[in-house]
Amino acid sequence: MRRTRSLNGIDRRRVLSSLALLPVLPGTLVAAAAQTRAPGDLLPSWSDGPAKQAIVDFVRATTEPSSPTYVAPGDRIAVFDQDGTLWVEQPMYAQVAYCLERVPALVARKPELRNVEPFKTVLSGNREAMAKLPLRDIEKILAATLTGMTVEEFQSEVSRWLETARHPRWNRPYTELTFQPMQEVLQYLQSNAFKTYIVTGGGQDFVRVYAAKTYGIPPEQVVGTAGTTKFGYGRNGQPLLTKEPKLLLNDDKGGKVEGIHLMIGRRPVAAFGNSVGDREMLEYTRAGQGAPLAMLVLHDDAAREYAYGPAAGLPDSKIGTFTPALYDEARKRDWTVISMKNDWKRIFAFEA
Amino acid sequence: MRRTRSLNGIDRRRVLSSLALLPVLPGTLVAAAAQTRAPGDLLPSWSDGPAKQAIVDFVRATTEPSSPTYVAPGDRIAVFDQDGTLWVEQPMYAQVAYCLERVPALVARKPELRNVEPFKTVLSGNREAMAKLPLRDIEKILAATLTGMTVEEFQSEVSRWLETARHPRWNRPYTELTFQPMQEVLQYLQSNAFKTYIVTGGGQDFVRVYAAKTYGIPPEQVVGTAGTTKFGYGRNGQPLLTKEPKLLLNDDKGGKVEGIHLMIGRRPVAAFGNSVGDREMLEYTRAGQGAPLAMLVLHDDAAREYAYGPAAGLPDSKIGTFTPALYDEARKRDWTVISMKNDWKRIFAFEA
Repeated sequence: MRRTRSLNGIDRRRVLSSLALLPVLPGTLVAAAAQTRAPGDLLPSWSDGPAKQAIVDFVRATTEPSSPTYVAPGDRIAVFDQDGTLWVEQPMYAQVAYCLERVPALVARKPELRNVEPFKTVLSGNREAMAKLPLRDIEKILAATLTGMTVEEFQSEVSRWLETARHPRWNRPYTELTFQPMQEVLQYLQSNAFKTYIVTGGGQDFVRVYAAKTYGIPPEQVVGTAGTTKFGYGRNGQPLLTKEPKLLLNDDKGGKVEGIHLMIGRRPVAAFGNSVGDREMLEYTRAGQGAPLAMLVLHDDAAREYAYGPAAGLPDSKIGTFTPALYDEARKRDWTVISMKNDWKRIFAFEA
Repeated sequence: MRRTRSLNGIDRRRVLSSLALLPVLPGTLVAAAAQTRAPGDLLPSWSDGPAKQAIVDFVRATTEPSSPTYVAPGDRIAVFDQDGTLWVEQPMYAQVAYCLERVPALVARKPELRNVEPFKTVLSGNREAMAKLPLRDIEKILAATLTGMTVEEFQSEVSRWLETARHPRWNRPYTELTFQPMQEVLQYLQSNAFKTYIVTGGGQDFVRVYAAKTYGIPPEQVVGTAGTTKFGYGRNGQPLLTKEPKLLLNDDKGGKVEGIHLMIGRRPVAAFGNSVGDREMLEYTRAGQGAPLAMLVLHDDAAREYAYGPAAGLPDSKIGTFTPALYDEARKRDWTVISMKNDWKRIFAFEA
């Protein structure tokens, strides 16, 4: 189904490519249209429309050697936010679920925490009380469950949790709740020599545990919020790295751009996000030379996923989500908005 | 010329492979020797001997599918120190030369520094006085010349400097003073699907400027000492990143292992270094499973390069170099020492 909404009335590429959908065209334009459509078949979960077309046009503009905006393979860097962009972020970030569900094991190891807040509330299982915990208490839980062990112990704990944890709505592993259309974009870009990175506000070490298997993205291409580690020696003199409760990189908002510089060292040519945490990364990418692509996922499908942000008429104060102000900026700066409802034929791979 | 020094008298692989150099062998062993030699031809600047053989054996042990220590292509991570391992570090790190040579331009922009120490001493050109500047003053010079500009401005400044700067001994650009045998190792590993990283105590942003052209290593595969950057907006509202004088990662000693975890997220299977700053990285690599390779470059060739560290009989107190204690550890942990004098037929590409 085609969309009528357009964020840029005078985008020549989009106007031209939409012509390809008309029933009768002169011979030369039909040939061009055929070329346009072929790569689009690599995006089978996408409906025809400006969002799909923007992706196909971008790949052509950056990979065809004759294109004035051609990008050499080594410089083809594409960055993706994770929560809400590559997979479901509602009703709670998977990593926060992990931290809460680790509390019983933590208290078993440190019984002195049993009657201490906020661990007491988490152990009670009272979801209403847990939802009211102040940020300071949430941070205590994160520090206690994400640090104090070696990096290998942490990887094992997260791996084990991912095998058994289930999302409350679909009763499926979190790693099955990735958006199939975005998986297709990752593969489409990777097959065109793009290096695809996750740039997430979530924990770098957490996401790295499953990124290769889940997205085809190796650990070194996951940039996320990171704490320090400390090199030292174990009982048998073996060298080891311990995770410390000290923030090194707060990979959110402007921190995402700083993280991109630290870990990648170059400006991306494509960026995908869904929330105010992605704003600076989208701005920075879009301010580059050539034909950079900036896309925003709009959660407007309560039936198949969730509707929040502008789609739910939420006010601008809700941090961490796509807000009306971000929507306005997308219009102004020619970022392409992806409507989950209209642009995606299916959301998850497990759908028929 | 073969070497008689051996760090491990009972290394079976080395004993077997040295048999290949004997004049008469049974047919099957000759066939095995031919297989051994072929990849070695990709290391034409290396003399036959245990160092070259250790590299060839390592590649075979990690890339032949039937090998019990086979490593999947995605996990083939090799890390290289830069200063003293990939290129000349004497008489002064190239980056320190850069900072000192930037001082006149800095003072031209900020005349109030002209009569302030340590800038006054640097401007005097008195090398003896400059050599006596305390570390605190050196740090002031580094901060003043490496921070306070956008990341793009810094890249341009370093690029321009590299074009005209010359090493005092060879009167050549610093980027011509890379060790040809190590360039061959980089290419040999890259052609065997290894991802090669520089892990340097030097500035990450500095080394990234020339690493692709000089070593075939893209910016995202350079891990180095890094300061913070700050995201903000320029006069015309354009997003920009400014380099700040705040240390984020001190990529030396244990910090190299912490940097490897932050930027790569996995334990390397091969590590190359030359100084006490590389010790923990070598230990960490060598403590991994399979057949990890750890190699140390010994500067023992005063005629063609320099002789320092144990080769010059220096005491163990000289920080930043290969020390007798490191040499002892190499023996104990079966790291392979590379003698520049004996193992390298030529040092630089520009030699006849």
